[in-house]
Amino acid sequence: MEAAMNIDGVAHRTIWLAEDGRTVQVIDQTVLPHAFKVLNLSLWTQAAEAISTMVVRGAPLIGATAAYGLALAAREDPSDEGLETAAAGLMRTRPTAVNLRWAIETVQAALRPLPPAERADAAYALAARICDEDVAACQAIGRHGAALILQAYDGARPVNVLTHCNAGWLATVDWGTALAPIYVAHDAGVPVHVWVDETRPRNQGAALTAWELQRHGVPYTIIADNAGGHLMQHGRVDLCIVGSDRLAANGDVCNKIGTYLKALAAHDNGVPFYAALPTSTIDWRLDDGRRIPIEERDEAEVTHITGQAASGERVTVRLTPEGGRAANFAFDVTPARLVSAIVTERGVCAASREGLASLYPEISEVAGR
Amino acid sequence: MEAAMNIDGVAHRTIWLAEDGRTVQVIDQTVLPHAFKVLNLSLWTQAAEAISTMVVRGAPLIGATAAYGLALAAREDPSDEGLETAAAGLMRTRPTAVNLRWAIETVQAALRPLPPAERADAAYALAARICDEDVAACQAIGRHGAALILQAYDGARPVNVLTHCNAGWLATVDWGTALAPIYVAHDAGVPVHVWVDETRPRNQGAALTAWELQRHGVPYTIIADNAGGHLMQHGRVDLCIVGSDRLAANGDVCNKIGTYLKALAAHDNGVPFYAALPTSTIDWRLDDGRRIPIEERDEAEVTHITGQAASGERVTVRLTPEGGRAANFAFDVTPARLVSAIVTERGVCAASREGLASLYPEISEVAGR
Repeated sequence: MEAAMNIDGVAHRTIWLAEDGRTVQVIDQTVLPHAFKVLNLSLWTQAAEAISTMVVRGAPLIGATAAYGLALAAREDPSDEGLETAAAGLMRTRPTAVNLRWAIETVQAALRPLPPAERADAAYALAARICDEDVAACQAIGRHGAALILQAYDGARPVNVLTHCNAGWLATVDWGTALAPIYVAHDAGVPVHVWVDETRPRNQGAALTAWELQRHGVPYTIIADNAGGHLMQHGRVDLCIVGSDRLAANGDVCNKIGTYLKALAAHDNGVPFYAALPTSTIDWRLDDGRRIPIEERDEAEVTHITGQAASGERVTVRLTPEGGRAANFAFDVTPARLVSAIVTERGVCAASREGLASLYPEISEVAGR
Repeated sequence: MEAAMNIDGVAHRTIWLAEDGRTVQVIDQTVLPHAFKVLNLSLWTQAAEAISTMVVRGAPLIGATAAYGLALAAREDPSDEGLETAAAGLMRTRPTAVNLRWAIETVQAALRPLPPAERADAAYALAARICDEDVAACQAIGRHGAALILQAYDGARPVNVLTHCNAGWLATVDWGTALAPIYVAHDAGVPVHVWVDETRPRNQGAALTAWELQRHGVPYTIIADNAGGHLMQHGRVDLCIVGSDRLAANGDVCNKIGTYLKALAAHDNGVPFYAALPTSTIDWRLDDGRRIPIEERDEAEVTHITGQAASGERVTVRLTPEGGRAANFAFDVTPARLVSAIVTERGVCAASREGLASLYPEISEVAGR
């Protein structure tokens, strides 16, 4: 399978197996862009911690890590009880990304009929397949989304794309969702420039998206989250592409906090606003985005920030007055009416029940029964 | 005159004269909330530097500092040439806040007819009057704006006000513009809770507004700039109040970058959105906000941030990949159609030419001629 990402000339994924064939390895995304560190996950509890502490993040990668987490669990204790404990523990790590539930349920359903002794091998094989399928889906999203970028290209001026958070290869197994179309277009010779929303409070844009784009050689400029509306008012954004942590069946897009504000600005200025996501991010059971649970995280992510001091050291500093309280909502929901189209591995469709039915006829048949 | 702000029991303004009656003293706002430091300004060039480096900021305080800057210049060299050099130098410090131009032109017009020997005393007296008038205007804004907060009070639940940037007493000489109504309402016993937008990239919300509110005992919660839309979608914001750096004659509000995004969200969710400002912030010569010059500042304000390390030291850290580029637009313009009302020291009016004419009949008469 073609890989999008090379690090120092070596094709890399965000999650893979160590040479022992058992230990799961991931890139520690909490220390990027200042350091590149690989972490070993040998126990399912380590996989759960990697998800909850955001060593790994991004809906598709959370799903892949949970799948490998169940494989680790099946090696530790393949009994029904053992797997259920692990599944419940993994499920509790983060509430919003539906890929987590999808991956856990997929692996559980496959293991349940098997005798315990066969479960670990089957789980590893299934986790690997989930990873491969994610890469293939993201590549296809890249192709479909690149057509939208090409549409915006006038043959001369670079296409200015605004993105929020990180929905690149770091958020998936490879390629990314929102960034995959950018990589495909860039590789095909379409000049693309990316406005990278910093994405407070965890700065996934400034830290991860900027780092990814720089490694790939895609021109980009980091902006404060506050700046996107101003840029759109002045015709400096041709289109927006974001990822999603959960898409409701009506086309409402749950994504990193602040996405809704950019969608409002895009709508107010006639700028197309796309959400790119694999099928595993669609929550067919939820017909309204307003019912998606929104994670609230530690206020320290708002009151403090970690960066690299002039000494090269990573230092955490407090930004707020001593005793100042903060709230930290991790996601918001963009109503479908503000979304120009959804891009999945199957193609591009309207952000609506009918639009999704055009790409997923089998679902509307199921729903119609 | 009643003062809003006490620091350790002592009434404070943001700008005042030292005991020698010549040296201008200001609070160094670049080190808040971690340190409280007073700076001496003895030369007009120091006043200019205090404005451009944002030791002082906020449209009204920029105006007051420029007025005192001309007083310092008049003491250094009261000739026409000396004053013109200083006026031009002060004018170049920051392009967006119109109070700067207003204060410089006001002082210049008063000094021009005077013999050079009388100019310094006259300039000091006028700067002091500009400061006193700013305090009186802000207090009146507080009274008018508090009525809007009271309107939103149901007699039980605290009124949730969202504000962006710092338009408190630190942005003015005392009281503030957007925060003055909050102080007046709070002091009158109306329970108010403030959602404080962090306000990247310079974090005036997290650093200054939070510090001010805490000193005054007003309950507040700091949020990432990304969070306001989500809060409004969930009914957790009763009204928004922001300040302004320049109000166009048609009611378009130029204010800290990101204000436009909050106004869009307020409009989308039926939340009232108010801008509070003294008359000196109205640019009667500009009939369209789109023509307001938007300052672009150093990218280092986006790529790096300064905070307090656990050691107590102030440390600057890099947030972005080495070599990562950033853009730093300081303001945006919120179209009048998104603004529920303008609050000035004269009262509350619609954000439109007609609305402003109702509060400023003398201006429409001038314009009508």
